[in-house]
Amino acid sequence: KPGSVLQVDALTDEILQGNRSALAKGITLVESNAAHHFREAQSLLQKLLPSSGKSIRIGITGVPGAGKSTFIEAFGVFLCGLGHKVAVLAIDPSSTVSGGSILGDKTRMERLSRQPNAFIRPSPSGGKLGGVHRKTRESMLLCEAAGFDVILIETVGVGQSEVAVREMVDFFMLLVLTGAGDELQGMKKGIMELADAIVVNKADGANEPVAEKTRLEYKRIIHFLQRSTPGWDTKALSCSALTGKGIPEIWTVVRNFRDAVEESGVFGERRKEQIRDWLHTVISDHLHFSFYQNVGVKSLLPKLEKDVLNGEKTAAGAADELFEVFYKR
Amino acid sequence: KPGSVLQVDALTDEILQGNRSALAKGITLVESNAAHHFREAQSLLQKLLPSSGKSIRIGITGVPGAGKSTFIEAFGVFLCGLGHKVAVLAIDPSSTVSGGSILGDKTRMERLSRQPNAFIRPSPSGGKLGGVHRKTRESMLLCEAAGFDVILIETVGVGQSEVAVREMVDFFMLLVLTGAGDELQGMKKGIMELADAIVVNKADGANEPVAEKTRLEYKRIIHFLQRSTPGWDTKALSCSALTGKGIPEIWTVVRNFRDAVEESGVFGERRKEQIRDWLHTVISDHLHFSFYQNVGVKSLLPKLEKDVLNGEKTAAGAADELFEVFYKR
Repeated sequence: KPGSVLQVDALTDEILQGNRSALAKGITLVESNAAHHFREAQSLLQKLLPSSGKSIRIGITGVPGAGKSTFIEAFGVFLCGLGHKVAVLAIDPSSTVSGGSILGDKTRMERLSRQPNAFIRPSPSGGKLGGVHRKTRESMLLCEAAGFDVILIETVGVGQSEVAVREMVDFFMLLVLTGAGDELQGMKKGIMELADAIVVNKADGANEPVAEKTRLEYKRIIHFLQRSTPGWDTKALSCSALTGKGIPEIWTVVRNFRDAVEESGVFGERRKEQIRDWLHTVISDHLHFSFYQNVGVKSLLPKLEKDVLNGEKTAAGAADELFEVFYKR
Repeated sequence: KPGSVLQVDALTDEILQGNRSALAKGITLVESNAAHHFREAQSLLQKLLPSSGKSIRIGITGVPGAGKSTFIEAFGVFLCGLGHKVAVLAIDPSSTVSGGSILGDKTRMERLSRQPNAFIRPSPSGGKLGGVHRKTRESMLLCEAAGFDVILIETVGVGQSEVAVREMVDFFMLLVLTGAGDELQGMKKGIMELADAIVVNKADGANEPVAEKTRLEYKRIIHFLQRSTPGWDTKALSCSALTGKGIPEIWTVVRNFRDAVEESGVFGERRKEQIRDWLHTVISDHLHFSFYQNVGVKSLLPKLEKDVLNGEKTAAGAADELFEVFYKR
C-alpha cells in the first residue's frame, strides 16, 4: 500500500535528506486528486511544514517565445555554480502531464537537469478551479523542506496564473523581448505592475543595441506605473541566456531586493499575507468545486444561464433555484 | 404589509411610468437584506427585466478629490438639457446609509437633484462580501425600467470596486487632476487600463495650461497601455466642471464609442458577458456568505487561521476541519 503511515514517515525522512526522487514522489502524492491520497498528503505536508519557508521564491513570467526556459536554465546553472540548490516549478495550464513523467521538461532544460543540485518539475493543470495554484504552493513547501533554497516558478504571461504566482512568491520577474511596442500588445493588462524587475532577454550579438534601447524604453514606462513591492523601485535589466551576460547582475538585484524588504518588514508581512490567502483560496476552491460539481447544479445550470441571458430570469432568481437543488443533496 | 403581491404590482406600474419615489422605494426593496423582502424584490425585478437594458451605462472613477461629484453634476445637468433622463448611482464602500435618506448626496449635487429628469441614489455598502455590486447592478435595471437612458455609476478609485464597476458598465471613465506624476502614486494598479477615457478635470482659469500638459502626459502613457475595450483607443480629454468647457466633447466621445462598439459587436458581447458574470457573482457571494456566516466556521476560523500562520497546520488541513463543521449544520 503506497499510503501507509510507515511509508509517509519514510518519505518524510527521505525528503528532509534532500532525496530528489522522494521529493518527486511527494509532489505526486500532493498533486493527486484521489480522495484516498488526501490524508497521506496532508500528513506529509504537516510533517514537512516546520522545515519549509527558508528559500527565496522567484516567479518568472513572459509571453510565449520570451525565452523563459533558456533563461531559467542559464540562471539555474549559474546559481548551482554558486552552491545553491535550485528547484524549478513550471505552471502550464495547457499541460496534461499527470505527474511522473517530466521527460518534456528535462529535454527543455538539459544542462540544468544534469546538475546534482537542481530539481525540475512541471505542475500539471489541476482543472479550471485554481487547483493548480494550491498545488504549486504545496510543491514549493516540499522543495524547501528538501533543502532547495532558490525556488523558480515559471508561468506563461497570458492567463490568470501570473497573478496567482505573484501572490505566492517573494520576487516577480517579467521576461521580455526587444521591441517593446509590439510585444506590449500581447501582454496581459497590468502585468508590468506585478513585476519587481523587467528583464530584456536575448541581449546578444547584433541584438545588443536594440536590447539596450528596449531596456531604456521599459525603464521610462516603469516610471509611470505603480510599484509591485512597497519601497522597491522596479528595475529594468537585460541579459543573454545564450552568453550568460547580465545573469550575475540579476542575482545581485534579487539579493538586494531581499535585503531591502527584509529590513523594511515587507518580506515577513507579505509571507504572512500569502499564508492567509492560501487558506482562503483553498476554502474558495472547495466551495466552488462542490457547487459546480453537484449533479443537480450541473444539469440545471445551462438552462438557467440561458434564461438569465435572455432576460427571462434574474441572476438572483436563477441562483436561488440552483441553491435549492444544491442544498437538497 | 409592504410586500404583498398587489403592492409589488402597483410598484411595478409606477416605476414603469417613471415615478421617482416609486423607483427609490423599489431600490430600497432590492437593497434590503431582510429575508422576507427577497421574494418581493425578485418578483419586482422579474417584472421589470424586459424593460431594462435600454441605456448607456457609464462608470466614473477617480481618487478622492478628483472632483467626481462636481463633474457628475455638470455632466448630468448638461445631459438633462439635451432631454436625457439621467440616473446617478454612487457606490461608497464607506457609506452606512441604509436606504431612504439621500440628503447627503442631494446636498452634494444640488443643481442636478433639482432637475425633473434626474435621479440620484447612493448605494450603501452591502458588507464585505460583494453585495454592494450585485445591488448596484439590480438598481441599474430598475432605473432603466423607469426610463432613465443614461446611467452614471460613481465609484472611488482606491479599492476593489472599480473592477466590479468596469464589469457592469459600457463605458468607463477615469477622472484625474493636473500633475499626473504625483497623483499616479495614489492610484490603484492597472486602473488606467480599465478606462475608455481619461478626463483631466478642473481645466479652468490659471490651471488650464497645466491641465493641457497633464492631458498630453496621459495621452503618452496610454500609448503604452492595453486598451480597455477591443477596437477602441482610450481617449485623453480635459474639462471644467466649473465652466462647463469640454463637457459636450465628452458626451460626443461617449456617443462615438457607442456607435463603434455597437457596430463591431463588442457592445452586445460585453453585455452578454456581464449578465453571465452577474449570475456567477451572485452564486459566489452566496457560497462565501453561507460559509463565513456559519456559526461553527465563525468560532473556529480565528484559531485555525493562527495555526496556519504559525506553520502548525497546512491550509488544506485547516480548511478540512472547517468544512467538517460546515457540512454538519
